[in-house]
Amino acid sequence: MKVGIIMGSKSDLPVMQEAIDILKGFDIPVDVDIVSAHRTPEKMFDYGKNAHKNGIAVIIAGAGGAAHLPGMIASLSPLPVIGVPVKSSNSIDGWDSVLSILQMPGGVPVATVALNGAKNAGILAAQIIGTSDACVLDKIVTYKEGLKLKVIESAKGL
Amino acid sequence: MKVGIIMGSKSDLPVMQEAIDILKGFDIPVDVDIVSAHRTPEKMFDYGKNAHKNGIAVIIAGAGGAAHLPGMIASLSPLPVIGVPVKSSNSIDGWDSVLSILQMPGGVPVATVALNGAKNAGILAAQIIGTSDACVLDKIVTYKEGLKLKVIESAKGL
Amino acid sequence: MKVGIIMGSKSDLPVMQEAIDILKGFDIPVDVDIVSAHRTPEKMFDYGKNAHKNGIAVIIAGAGGAAHLPGMIASLSPLPVIGVPVKSSNSIDGWDSVLSILQMPGGVPVATVALNGAKNAGILAAQIIGTSDACVLDKIVTYKEGLKLKVIESAKGL
Amino acid sequence: MKVGIIMGSKSDLPVMQEAIDILKGFDIPVDVDIVSAHRTPEKMFDYGKNAHKNGIAVIIAGAGGAAHLPGMIASLSPLPVIGVPVKSSNSIDGWDSVLSILQMPGGVPVATVALNGAKNAGILAAQIIGTSDACVLDKIVTYKEGLKLKVIESAKGL
Amino acid sequence: MKVGIIMGSKSDLPVMQEAIDILKGFDIPVDVDIVSAHRTPEKMFDYGKNAHKNGIAVIIAGAGGAAHLPGMIASLSPLPVIGVPVKSSNSIDGWDSVLSILQMPGGVPVATVALNGAKNAGILAAQIIGTSDACVLDKIVTYKEGLKLKVIESAKGL
Amino acid sequence: MKVGIIMGSKSDLPVMQEAIDILKGFDIPVDVDIVSAHRTPEKMFDYGKNAHKNGIAVIIAGAGGAAHLPGMIASLSPLPVIGVPVKSSNSIDGWDSVLSILQMPGGVPVATVALNGAKNAGILAAQIIGTSDACVLDKIVTYKEGLKLKVIESAKGL
Amino acid sequence: MKVGIIMGSKSDLPVMQEAIDILKGFDIPVDVDIVSAHRTPEKMFDYGKNAHKNGIAVIIAGAGGAAHLPGMIASLSPLPVIGVPVKSSNSIDGWDSVLSILQMPGGVPVATVALNGAKNAGILAAQIIGTSDACVLDKIVTYKEGLKLKVIESAKGL
Amino acid sequence: MKVGIIMGSKSDLPVMQEAIDILKGFDIPVDVDIVSAHRTPEKMFDYGKNAHKNGIAVIIAGAGGAAHLPGMIASLSPLPVIGVPVKSSNSIDGWDSVLSILQMPGGVPVATVALNGAKNAGILAAQIIGTSDACVLDKIVTYKEGLKLKVIESAKGL
Repeated sequence: MKVGIIMGSKSDLPVMQEAIDILKGFDIPVDVDIVSAHRTPEKMFDYGKNAHKNGIAVIIAGAGGAAHLPGMIASLSPLPVIGVPVKSSNSIDGWDSVLSILQMPGGVPVATVALNGAKNAGILAAQIIGTSDACVLDKIVTYKEGLKLKVIESAKGL
Repeated sequence: MKVGIIMGSKSDLPVMQEAIDILKGFDIPVDVDIVSAHRTPEKMFDYGKNAHKNGIAVIIAGAGGAAHLPGMIASLSPLPVIGVPVKSSNSIDGWDSVLSILQMPGGVPVATVALNGAKNAGILAAQIIGTSDACVLDKIVTYKEGLKLKVIESAKGL
Repeated sequence: MKVGIIMGSKSDLPVMQEAIDILKGFDIPVDVDIVSAHRTPEKMFDYGKNAHKNGIAVIIAGAGGAAHLPGMIASLSPLPVIGVPVKSSNSIDGWDSVLSILQMPGGVPVATVALNGAKNAGILAAQIIGTSDACVLDKIVTYKEGLKLKVIESAKGL
Repeated sequence: MKVGIIMGSKSDLPVMQEAIDILKGFDIPVDVDIVSAHRTPEKMFDYGKNAHKNGIAVIIAGAGGAAHLPGMIASLSPLPVIGVPVKSSNSIDGWDSVLSILQMPGGVPVATVALNGAKNAGILAAQIIGTSDACVLDKIVTYKEGLKLKVIESAKGL
Repeated sequence: MKVGIIMGSKSDLPVMQEAIDILKGFDIPVDVDIVSAHRTPEKMFDYGKNAHKNGIAVIIAGAGGAAHLPGMIASLSPLPVIGVPVKSSNSIDGWDSVLSILQMPGGVPVATVALNGAKNAGILAAQIIGTSDACVLDKIVTYKEGLKLKVIESAKGL
Repeated sequence: MKVGIIMGSKSDLPVMQEAIDILKGFDIPVDVDIVSAHRTPEKMFDYGKNAHKNGIAVIIAGAGGAAHLPGMIASLSPLPVIGVPVKSSNSIDGWDSVLSILQMPGGVPVATVALNGAKNAGILAAQIIGTSDACVLDKIVTYKEGLKLKVIESAKGL
Repeated sequence: MKVGIIMGSKSDLPVMQEAIDILKGFDIPVDVDIVSAHRTPEKMFDYGKNAHKNGIAVIIAGAGGAAHLPGMIASLSPLPVIGVPVKSSNSIDGWDSVLSILQMPGGVPVATVALNGAKNAGILAAQIIGTSDACVLDKIVTYKEGLKLKVIESAKGL
Repeated sequence: MKVGIIMGSKSDLPVMQEAIDILKGFDIPVDVDIVSAHRTPEKMFDYGKNAHKNGIAVIIAGAGGAAHLPGMIASLSPLPVIGVPVKSSNSIDGWDSVLSILQMPGGVPVATVALNGAKNAGILAAQIIGTSDACVLDKIVTYKEGLKLKVIESAKGL
């Protein structure tokens, strides 16, 4: 099972890279592309309609401002879609992308993570794959154990 | 020249009716349809791609919540698109639809009007047609004159 | 695979019932409980620590105000956790529950849906199960087809 | 047909220049001026009353803070008025100019674009002219095609 | 010295009546009118340009939504202008009128009072007149003494 | 007639200096002091109780965060009080000082100006004095004329 | 040790009653009064200056809008002050009282509870007394146990 | 009596250090630790369950984003808990941590201070200890006197 990671503009890549990195750390294959709801609507349509036929199990979509990519992909695909609100320049403090992604109407969910929260989008995608792949589930348990140890270590330095 | 009026759900009709009524008052033909970005993406695609070939000059699109319809139509059509943020139930005070429609990225404008401002969307559509139709421009001048008279009349009753 | 549905208070049930209903419609077994982060922290701990050992694949957690239940469950469990911000009385327009659930720190995601968006939480849970269960995936495709037909039908009445 | 571009202060020019540039790229003549609602109300009155008699078809008005210029021009002129909220210093994150321009009362629309969205204001003005000028409409189709190609090109570099 | 009280629409009268009543209580003559920035710009111009020549010393202007009346009057008149943000229907919780009135640019102040705070606008106008009229100043001192006594009386009932 | 200018902390002086400067430009005497509602409540009490006996006609009070100085002075003095919300460090984008100053209860007005709008506070104080001092009124007329000329001049450079 | 409970207006009593009730339930004596920062500043001064001399150990202060009572009492008294933001009519959704109470400057804390959270203010006051009164601490432990049992009971009815 | 100071991450230490410093200045012993609600939930449980048995009288908990530490500790401990909202990177302007800490449900209070207000958290903890320790109460009186003198001194320099 592969995770599809798409973003509205190449300028979103520094934020979205964290999703790529964390999934690679879990040895989960990713498929990265630039797909713009507003500038390449046909490409978006093809992507959304066919992702589940191309071995993709979960889609992560990041976008800023009036962020329509995650919601439109969720409209087009039966797969779970994770939305990452990106704080772009000229954003109104990030509220625009957060609300454009979160407040989807009944029937078409987007699993929204925090502003610029691409790392968590990657972990969530792994957790979704982990629901049917015990090996990935184990890796998540180990990852969380690692988080704990780092905090405990950091407390020693006080 | 015709104005296309679309909305994401039939529940938006009470708000959007004001656009229909004001345009009828200007004798401008309208074409009303329900087109949902999230539930009927193919219909939306067809609508956006073909509106300018079907005698439509301006599109008014109303939607609530994570309102993607106006922006997606603006992505698909070369026509001017007017967006009406609709305050739906479960909206976060209307901020979600306002920001989802207003904060479009560079390259794909949506002419946004006030929350539930369908009447103004209709007037704006008439003004756009009035840029090449002196008769409609005259009607707008007359309409504004009427607004003025009503205010002056109302002040007499004080 | 079962979906665990928990909420901070019985007063959240009218909102959360939509998640129960939609999952039942997909023939996915649910396990419903009241678990309060602030009043029953031990029960929450047990729930979070053991859900994945009890046949639960996905957890839906709803809460209002300073909503800590979804994030704490995400802290305790390796499973994907879907958070439903509930607009409770004395909420500051729902912003408190939305931000308390959405803005999780790196490492511990919550898949947040819209304010009062329990129905979408249910669909998202089904989509997650659908990543490894072709039969559920088919039901989602059918469900989305149904949404489309209802819109098209509603447009006829204009 | 000409586009009138006005702004409340010369300090708005760096933002508003994008509207000028994009319209020049479409070979549409522009008429640029500084008109302040609060410091030159008489000039604003003359501008609003006479623009449609001076060969102007569309007006773009940019202003920051309590931004009254777009709305007052819309009050004075029968032409379509596009408002650009400018994020000025001492603005409360841009919310003041956005709401002062967007939330016009019924009867007097302003076509509002995103915060600092002067480029989109220019494109929207071109689209309005395109409703009666097939050559401009063609240029918009070509422009949108160009946006698409740039995204597709950028995706190759991943 | 007279206080001019204007409002954008007769629907603002229930809110603005409190300013009229309190000033009458202070025996300060008022002059009430409906003046709409957006529907009667010429009347607004005349009003703003001439108020100080007509015996008016202070102007109270109330408006809702994108509230331009107080700021435009402040632009046109050398008199102190008090702005009352009115919470109209379709307002975004009153934020639009508050910010449209408060956030005036340097050079053109509006003395803004609380949302729907017409009573305070009246008291403020009286205080301004009190700066040169010892009799009015005395009345304000007495008024404030009355407020105090009412609170102390209400505490007895506990 | 003198204008009293007070602020909660010396760190507010760079913002408040604009009020001092503009009033000096109008040849209106000012009296500047640091008065903190939270750290020098007794000094504040004395100031508020006695200002009108010390030749002060108008009070300008600036403060940041939970800004109580303007409202408390308005509680203690019968004079018109102008409040300047100051955007301090750790402010929540200025909203705290704006709302703490603006939203006064019925009976005790504060004439609120824009965030960091000390210049406008100075002009407003001059306008208040101008209600009984024709010479000051003339200076305001001249000042506004100057604003106009500067805009017209700046437009020549386009 | 006694808890002083004050509020800006008798209209706050329905909200503040919850603090009275919970403290009575803990057998902690309370002293209830109406003290308005803006209408009875002298009474507030006396109250703040003398509370700790009158057997009061903790003060709970509730107020709405530009809520200055909690912060001013904290300025005047060395005792811990708990602030209750009250959502009054004409409040801007409660944001004004929340921010006016919460955002106190360094040196003068107010222990702020949730909007309309008078019950929690009462519990917090009891917890403060519990730091030196083991009997009250026990009652709090028992109270929390009771909350837990109620949740567990309510879950049985599912 | 000791004050327990905990924070969700070592990156919160620069903000939280102010609480440590002010308490040391009052000669009140502090116990500092890193305890993360989301990464070390077991440590948090132990901390919350046992603090009152370990000589801690008051707990100060600081956290950013979806800040669950203060509320969870309040859930687990019968002691008064002071919450410090920390403005972390990727925070939505601090609103997330403020609302996650402030808006606790009835039954489980958190004494919330201003954004980044760790100094005030320290003073509040001292005031709580001062309710039963006359020596600490005296120090607070002296501290407040010092604040006053600094303001009066700073005013001399004008």
